[in-house]
Amino acid sequence: MPIYNAPVKDIQFVLHDLLRVSEQDIPGFEDLDRDFTGAVVEEAGKVATAVLHPLNAVGDREGCVLENGVVRTPTGFKDAFEAMKDGGWTAMDCDPAYGGQGLPYVMHTAAQEPFVSANMAFNMYQGLTHGAYSAIYAHGSDDQKQTYLPKLTTCEWTGTMNLTEPHCGTDLGLMRTKAVPQDDGTYKITGQKIFISAGDHDLASNIIHLVLAKIQGGPDGIKGVSLFIVPKFMVNDDGSLGARNGVSVGKIEEKMGIHGNSTCVMNYDAATGFLLGEAHKGMRAMFTMMNEARLGVGLQGYAQAESAYQNAVAYANDRLQGRAVTGAENPDGPADPLIVHPDIRRNLMDQKSFVEGARAFTYWGAYLIDRAHRNSDKDADGLISLMTPVIKGFLTDKGFEYATAAQQVYGGHGYIEEWGMSQYARDARIAMIYEGANGIQALDLVGRKLALDGGKHVMAFFEMIKSFIKENEGNEALNKDFLVPLKAASEDLQAAGMYFMQNGMKNPNNALSGSYDFMHMMGHVCLGLMWARMAKAAMEALDSGASDTAFYETKIATGRYYMARQLPATGMHLARINTGADTVMALQAANF
Amino acid sequence: MPIYNAPVKDIQFVLHDLLRVSEQDIPGFEDLDRDFTGAVVEEAGKVATAVLHPLNAVGDREGCVLENGVVRTPTGFKDAFEAMKDGGWTAMDCDPAYGGQGLPYVMHTAAQEPFVSANMAFNMYQGLTHGAYSAIYAHGSDDQKQTYLPKLTTCEWTGTMNLTEPHCGTDLGLMRTKAVPQDDGTYKITGQKIFISAGDHDLASNIIHLVLAKIQGGPDGIKGVSLFIVPKFMVNDDGSLGARNGVSVGKIEEKMGIHGNSTCVMNYDAATGFLLGEAHKGMRAMFTMMNEARLGVGLQGYAQAESAYQNAVAYANDRLQGRAVTGAENPDGPADPLIVHPDIRRNLMDQKSFVEGARAFTYWGAYLIDRAHRNSDKDADGLISLMTPVIKGFLTDKGFEYATAAQQVYGGHGYIEEWGMSQYARDARIAMIYEGANGIQALDLVGRKLALDGGKHVMAFFEMIKSFIKENEGNEALNKDFLVPLKAASEDLQAAGMYFMQNGMKNPNNALSGSYDFMHMMGHVCLGLMWARMAKAAMEALDSGASDTAFYETKIATGRYYMARQLPATGMHLARINTGADTVMALQAANF
Repeated sequence: MPIYNAPVKDIQFVLHDLLRVSEQDIPGFEDLDRDFTGAVVEEAGKVATAVLHPLNAVGDREGCVLENGVVRTPTGFKDAFEAMKDGGWTAMDCDPAYGGQGLPYVMHTAAQEPFVSANMAFNMYQGLTHGAYSAIYAHGSDDQKQTYLPKLTTCEWTGTMNLTEPHCGTDLGLMRTKAVPQDDGTYKITGQKIFISAGDHDLASNIIHLVLAKIQGGPDGIKGVSLFIVPKFMVNDDGSLGARNGVSVGKIEEKMGIHGNSTCVMNYDAATGFLLGEAHKGMRAMFTMMNEARLGVGLQGYAQAESAYQNAVAYANDRLQGRAVTGAENPDGPADPLIVHPDIRRNLMDQKSFVEGARAFTYWGAYLIDRAHRNSDKDADGLISLMTPVIKGFLTDKGFEYATAAQQVYGGHGYIEEWGMSQYARDARIAMIYEGANGIQALDLVGRKLALDGGKHVMAFFEMIKSFIKENEGNEALNKDFLVPLKAASEDLQAAGMYFMQNGMKNPNNALSGSYDFMHMMGHVCLGLMWARMAKAAMEALDSGASDTAFYETKIATGRYYMARQLPATGMHLARINTGADTVMALQAANF
Repeated sequence: MPIYNAPVKDIQFVLHDLLRVSEQDIPGFEDLDRDFTGAVVEEAGKVATAVLHPLNAVGDREGCVLENGVVRTPTGFKDAFEAMKDGGWTAMDCDPAYGGQGLPYVMHTAAQEPFVSANMAFNMYQGLTHGAYSAIYAHGSDDQKQTYLPKLTTCEWTGTMNLTEPHCGTDLGLMRTKAVPQDDGTYKITGQKIFISAGDHDLASNIIHLVLAKIQGGPDGIKGVSLFIVPKFMVNDDGSLGARNGVSVGKIEEKMGIHGNSTCVMNYDAATGFLLGEAHKGMRAMFTMMNEARLGVGLQGYAQAESAYQNAVAYANDRLQGRAVTGAENPDGPADPLIVHPDIRRNLMDQKSFVEGARAFTYWGAYLIDRAHRNSDKDADGLISLMTPVIKGFLTDKGFEYATAAQQVYGGHGYIEEWGMSQYARDARIAMIYEGANGIQALDLVGRKLALDGGKHVMAFFEMIKSFIKENEGNEALNKDFLVPLKAASEDLQAAGMYFMQNGMKNPNNALSGSYDFMHMMGHVCLGLMWARMAKAAMEALDSGASDTAFYETKIATGRYYMARQLPATGMHLARINTGADTVMALQAANF
């Protein structure tokens, strides 16, 4: 059976050595000292290892079952969900006014990581609920907040997001689900929604569906879309549950992975809905929580790679096969462990240097969200808006790539379901698709975010790198292995941006043909920046006499690997971008 | 349901415009004129589309079942197998002395492609049989050949390869399966073999297992391994089937994909075995068919990408979502088809330019095998030995990558099993693992093949590229878009080889840490060479007034894409290689 142990030290390193959370002038951060965050993450890790992880394979094998209109989750999920609720894990960053603990988002993120690594499909039930909480928190009336938020905070009720329809995913303007206004101010919602994660299940007494629909007679296209609260069971004035609403499960989809999560076709048949936020402004309401939701998906990407990596390392140390080319390292055994072989190392270092860089990037993003919200910092908000498509797109692409790479370490056993490595790859695959397929993330980045506020945020990002390099280039150890490659990579990225500016005007396809490469380039530059900062932090820790020298030295060595072996990818992406749209758009559609 | 149509024109283009098979001075090639190969591939395509492809999803869904010691293949497989036998598809390149058609291997390869694209798991039953045929053909006694080859040619009996044991895959020297010599010259084979594809099934009346085992008292390690023929049912002198042999199925493995093929744990319990070839020379016997077997796996890689690509194109043309940024292209419809979007194009062009280059590379490899065998051409044999790990490793890595990319075009539907795209990715995944995991291919390439015969073959490869460039650089159209990038890429590859020579001496890890990157680099250079040659051939066809101008122009445009957007990857791989082993080997095993 696969293993999972929360990388508490690595998480603490990012929170304290890199982000220095407790020193930040952000309300609530003053409580995030090492002892507190350590205790939280340690405890989350225990729950993840003991409760969630053993159910990961169970969920994959059993899946969810629809019987007589009722969805049954896999064996053990209900008890585990109760344990999560009892532990208060669902309420961490929710508003104390509604029963939450009011902790910063960065703390929530650090605590979530072990849960996602241990059992991604399971954790989605609370993840979606958190999304519904955020939407109602941001856009609900006082009455709506009072009715729903306390229950969503505790996950006594869970939530869903209903966007996609059979004929439209990205292009929601094509939506057909209708909302018909009623005399009492409610709406009757009718239509079919697909790919609804946690659409129905047996973990909660009520499910609060947030549903995009078009109000009859409203504007055409995307401007006529509104957001509605559609509870599975109507809620009486006293908070008790009333009649079943007109929403039912059409079927559960058979998917490549995340079998433990019920992905439902939901049929709305004149279901009673309550307008959330303003009429025809549904997309705006949906998008207010986009940064958080997409950051959560980016986390899923690297968190699956983290789990897969842990198992690949264990296998590489355990499996005896062949001899080190430089001389036997296990001379008394029948063969050396796999980990002696350079190509196994190359693979494991690729995984390790990605995952640790990705964690830093994601937590930094969460920190920016806190700064944006808690300090009303518009620059932080702009920066995280810029980073969000990169966190989502790059980390999920690479997360899948490295989950697959970890599977490869197992040879034939990696292909056998019993060993668990296939599941990491299959589960990670969805993160590249949902919450906006990665091509859409690239489009968002290049077509929208680069030019946001007159390009101010991308300029600030380049400036941040430049200043960091300038401030530290006197540090010889840091300069050679970290700052020089970071400078080269960020110059590649700037050159790509320049190409877009110079050539995108005359033909926007020149920019959009390079959008995917740009997203990956920027991902590498961000991880390069994170590694340079982490290396600096590790060097400082060593200089100040930290006792765990192996940990900090490993951190620096891992960073060196990233800079030397991963960062050069920016050159390839730039070369692709610089060829423009000509070869990309050359063919008639009929000639594909 | 997914579609599949054999790309007959593309196959014919490679056979005739590129390889000019009928003009080659290789015995048997004189019959390979356009009409003949066209008729064969056309017919193979019909069988693939009508018979095999509809069973692809069936096989994935039903899998193979072990009941009371008997394996049942999915619904329809038995009839389809009979159809393959009746059509003579299993016998194409087998020796006429044993009922084969004696056709060149390149013809066999071209006919196999549609079968593999349409149903990879199904086609493995005959693929493994072909491998067993080849081993007995090369190493069997006359008596063994007479007994087994006619039945294997027709697939009346099928074959298997038994190498892996639970504790050893790559390192077969650790093998425990024992062969105890008997007075009658036979051996009693005892041990357990795992991952045995087509290990048992209901498609044939007998199964001929080729089993590696150690003869009691023989040399230790890999030098004590011998190869044995172990029939499921003993064969009487008159060719009729006798008693059941001591071999049984332990279980069927639950795999990530290729569910239609029964992957068995095989238990040998004093089973009667017949020595094949010389005692203790089992690995050599196994390796004589390695080039063919690995080329076949490389074909599986790109053939799955081909199928996935065909479906991605259909979906991209069909699915209406969003508007072209340069103005609506389907103004009367609710939205434009996906294929108008630059990032969808980028994705499809990546797939298309890979698959077509990979086909050329594979068929060229098959042609080299024919030249090596039929003309006893040692240079061709050396060249295909060099190319084999690249064909296997690069084409299966990229095949999986692009099957996954095709899945991405479908958005959420790509993740739902019903749409079939997940299966292409899951099935393609195994090709990176079996027949020598791709890390082993890279090791074989860098640790063994580069230096083979004093480096003669890699020199010949570079010389081939150089001469091609020299001969054609006067062709301006070819030069700018094809020869210049090919030259740059092959210089990168040479620089990497130089790095290995200069730094591998003092520490072999400097070479082996870069082996995987080198394999990918060389794959790109090979595909770049194929594209330069294909472009030249297409230009010549256009110049000589070929009527199908759209086909040839598309070929050139697709090649241009590859050269502009894929080939620059060599620079990244070189940069990785040039950093040597330091960062790769830096960590203690305990610090991963």
